[in-house]
Amino acid sequence: MVDIATRVWNHKWKIDPIVRSLIDTDFYKLLMCQSVFRNRPDTRVTFSLINRTKSIRLAELVDEGELREQLDHIRSLRLTRGESTWLRGNTFYGKRQMFTPAFMEWFENLSLPPYHLEKKDGQYELTFEGTWPEVMLWEIPALAVIMELRSRAVLRDMGKFELQVLYARAMTKLWEKVEALKPVEGLRLADFGTRRRHSYLWQDWCVQAMMEGLGESFIGTSNCRIAMHRDIEAIGTNAHELPMVYAALAEGDEALRQAPYDVLADWHEEHDGNLRIILPDTYGTKGFLEGAPDWLAGWTGIRVDSGDPAVGAETAINWWKSRGEDPSEKLIIFSDGLDVEKIKELHGQFSDRVRVSFGWGTMLTNDFKGLVAKDALVPFSLVCKAVAADGRPTVKLSDNPNKAMGPAEEIARYKRVFDVGDQTAMKVTV
Amino acid sequence: MVDIATRVWNHKWKIDPIVRSLIDTDFYKLLMCQSVFRNRPDTRVTFSLINRTKSIRLAELVDEGELREQLDHIRSLRLTRGESTWLRGNTFYGKRQMFTPAFMEWFENLSLPPYHLEKKDGQYELTFEGTWPEVMLWEIPALAVIMELRSRAVLRDMGKFELQVLYARAMTKLWEKVEALKPVEGLRLADFGTRRRHSYLWQDWCVQAMMEGLGESFIGTSNCRIAMHRDIEAIGTNAHELPMVYAALAEGDEALRQAPYDVLADWHEEHDGNLRIILPDTYGTKGFLEGAPDWLAGWTGIRVDSGDPAVGAETAINWWKSRGEDPSEKLIIFSDGLDVEKIKELHGQFSDRVRVSFGWGTMLTNDFKGLVAKDALVPFSLVCKAVAADGRPTVKLSDNPNKAMGPAEEIARYKRVFDVGDQTAMKVTV
Repeated sequence: MVDIATRVWNHKWKIDPIVRSLIDTDFYKLLMCQSVFRNRPDTRVTFSLINRTKSIRLAELVDEGELREQLDHIRSLRLTRGESTWLRGNTFYGKRQMFTPAFMEWFENLSLPPYHLEKKDGQYELTFEGTWPEVMLWEIPALAVIMELRSRAVLRDMGKFELQVLYARAMTKLWEKVEALKPVEGLRLADFGTRRRHSYLWQDWCVQAMMEGLGESFIGTSNCRIAMHRDIEAIGTNAHELPMVYAALAEGDEALRQAPYDVLADWHEEHDGNLRIILPDTYGTKGFLEGAPDWLAGWTGIRVDSGDPAVGAETAINWWKSRGEDPSEKLIIFSDGLDVEKIKELHGQFSDRVRVSFGWGTMLTNDFKGLVAKDALVPFSLVCKAVAADGRPTVKLSDNPNKAMGPAEEIARYKRVFDVGDQTAMKVTV
Repeated sequence: MVDIATRVWNHKWKIDPIVRSLIDTDFYKLLMCQSVFRNRPDTRVTFSLINRTKSIRLAELVDEGELREQLDHIRSLRLTRGESTWLRGNTFYGKRQMFTPAFMEWFENLSLPPYHLEKKDGQYELTFEGTWPEVMLWEIPALAVIMELRSRAVLRDMGKFELQVLYARAMTKLWEKVEALKPVEGLRLADFGTRRRHSYLWQDWCVQAMMEGLGESFIGTSNCRIAMHRDIEAIGTNAHELPMVYAALAEGDEALRQAPYDVLADWHEEHDGNLRIILPDTYGTKGFLEGAPDWLAGWTGIRVDSGDPAVGAETAINWWKSRGEDPSEKLIIFSDGLDVEKIKELHGQFSDRVRVSFGWGTMLTNDFKGLVAKDALVPFSLVCKAVAADGRPTVKLSDNPNKAMGPAEEIARYKRVFDVGDQTAMKVTV
């Protein structure tokens, strides 16, 4: 039987909204947002969407009107009562009331600020300006909207069964990954694929397939809405935007050198246990760790997000040893450019020396490579980053010079201040 | 939204019926049934289910209670008003009123006769006795029930996503076949896969995928219910059971030799055009054609259903030539052991010399080989055949000695009467 009401209801939508909830975002965004709301609520920032894969000409693929409708729809969203209840009442990382009443009250009244959209050279220039806590919440939904509109554009002319077979192939491909990972003893793996997912429904499917296929080895998802709906752990800690904005705001070189530690000092006050994860690569991992205060060595773990991951992990292990810490009690989270072979390789290499876990992104939730004609769904590298704070440009270096962002003279200054020597360039695919 | 009524309704079923309609059967069964109803309505026959793949121990896989419930459900079925309307009103092979009012009235009042079921040596002995027109309609539903119960038994312990991935893999596999056949110019292909299908829903999916993927090259299905629901052609003409029963009823060797021609003489009166298809292999193609009356050479085509298909096709072409017929106006239907490579090969070999079409069975609707652990869904060879008529055993020889059926002394007699010389044995997989 057709459910008539459902069908009529579906017809009433002017669009098929991609992002339908303010918590269809990464958990670490909300954690960072609360930290920013507490520590830097009035900082004004600009976030900008950047397609690093110039060969994908987004403005030719994706209709501007459709993009505006999707973005306008996101601006109309408010935190629902059930979402608020979940954020207030749920246990995150073993802790009740992770989000303070003051933050929740602010979040309950939030609507996302305006966006600015232009076409240029076959690409979209999409920027968001306003106070940091508001603007930062645009990052994930903006990326998810562009990614899914691109998927829809590519799939538009396909037949019904052709589409079903496409998803059948994608399911088969994912399940083969699940089957390859199932025998890996002691594996701990989370979904970090919200920002570059093929679509919301596909991410939700991937998460459920991992729940069934990997059981205990699948430890949760970064996506709050999916975590809530599927009753699993929401996973994530912090990201580059914190040191990038703190650094941009720093007055002079000495303050700049201190900025990344200031971020973690604030975080240290707010969080403990498994939320104390260092992301050391914003301005070069090596220099960051060498200059780090001793209290940071007491933190639970390090997230390796750029450069050669095995080198990053060895650097972390050696650093803990040099500070008198026992690496076997520490956690290394790998979250850059992962797929099955890399996960198995890193797990084999490090799991008997440190605790290891994986945040699996694009190749989990958007691996449609080879599944459509002309490989039109091949993953590409789209980011949405803070580019300015209180009128000053931000800079990111990372452990891969191909991921560096910011004005050339500022990059040069940061390299000098943070004493970043030679870096090995690695290809950025996603 | 959940449709509550649908959910509650689904709960009310004691079983999930496999065969839900008396026209969930092959079209040629109905054509033959009408012919039998007209010419031999009182002949008493026994049909028997035979699993030629002894390694598949059906009685250990399939629960007897479940099997009885499914068979009892089939006995409870009556032709519905809509089905009757379709059979009475539809155009089959370009002809209106294919089914006579007398036949339709009989069919509208039909319920299938009792069955007899026993377990023996890990197999089911399933037999049907009664008048020919009634009993013959058991063949297809009985096969479909056993095939699908076997599928269900194998899938019983699989997880929800594991199942979804299994069907994703099956869809992908089928679609690859569709894509491989799409470029074949002038291809004409029908679904003949009802009897050995994985399940009803899967056959229905395969048909729809072929409709979308092959367009005009997909000419229809043997399954009446699917033809009706999907608004496509119902395809089929006649089968071995006609000569087998006619032969069993023949008094003496001379009448036996004539029996296969008597069948087609009756058919000649009833049908013309594309329904005049000779199935010559019941007692050896070569002898059948050599002894055939001239009016048979005027028929539209020949179906090649056993032996090496290329040899069968050459035999047919040479026979037409020897009778002064133009092979390029004739139709050869291949319907035995087909898969993509064989279809492409035969099409390439014969389509510029005769009209060619394909009736694709098991490897279309039940190719789950390699898709589950221990290959537990590998196709197997299940048949349901007339084994006796008015108390006498039936015999089938075909062009493959591995497909011969009947008591040894009767097989020997038939070989003598029909002058069947040496035959090449070919492996029977499905």
